[in-house]
Amino acid sequence: MQKVNLKEKFNVFKDYWSPKIVGDLNESHVKLVKFKGEFVWHKHDNEDELFFIVKGTLIIKFRDQDVILNEGEFIIIPKGIEHLPVAEDEVHVLLIEPKTTLNTGDVTSELTKNELDRL
Amino acid sequence: MQKVNLKEKFNVFKDYWSPKIVGDLNESHVKLVKFKGEFVWHKHDNEDELFFIVKGTLIIKFRDQDVILNEGEFIIIPKGIEHLPVAEDEVHVLLIEPKTTLNTGDVTSELTKNELDRL
Repeated sequence: MQKVNLKEKFNVFKDYWSPKIVGDLNESHVKLVKFKGEFVWHKHDNEDELFFIVKGTLIIKFRDQDVILNEGEFIIIPKGIEHLPVAEDEVHVLLIEPKTTLNTGDVTSELTKNELDRL
Repeated sequence: MQKVNLKEKFNVFKDYWSPKIVGDLNESHVKLVKFKGEFVWHKHDNEDELFFIVKGTLIIKFRDQDVILNEGEFIIIPKGIEHLPVAEDEVHVLLIEPKTTLNTGDVTSELTKNELDRL
């Protein structure tokens, strides 16, 4: 049983939009990811997702509003809700979501990651 | 859909060992809790628990080791593992665990909370 230090883990990778698995929690994975730029509009038909901001500022666009998330804030995106993450500058995010979750949800794009590394 | 600011939420309660629900995430609750002092030895037969330290230092004693957790660190306690949280000074913790989780697990004590408030 080992603890995880978020800053240490974020120091060992640099690539954007590529979630790394850092824990198994019941039916979910705990993941760390760096965002920069604009992702793709998508939704997850069966999975709620938690985004917790470890560093930086993330905008999550929904069809009816934008939510600005700063360090120390989280949001839960319910299953079925379309969203678009946008990071003007680099953002460090902790994600918690079911192990079945594909990063681009119902969309396939060059950003789709079918296999995730573990840190 | 609303974001949650951890510091703001921790400012609205003071009681120790009394988790507050701040989110629904699939089959789990996201909870905030303040610890001070020593809890009770217990385990959760069916639930993994995630402890993320928002402020302060938490010692989690296991039967074979102690783990010291500081701000920005998390640990996942697998189902079935006995543990004892100890906080020499006040600690602010984010918990993620299945909605079925009872705070004192397989033990009933004066610290058992059968009903949790929502913030």
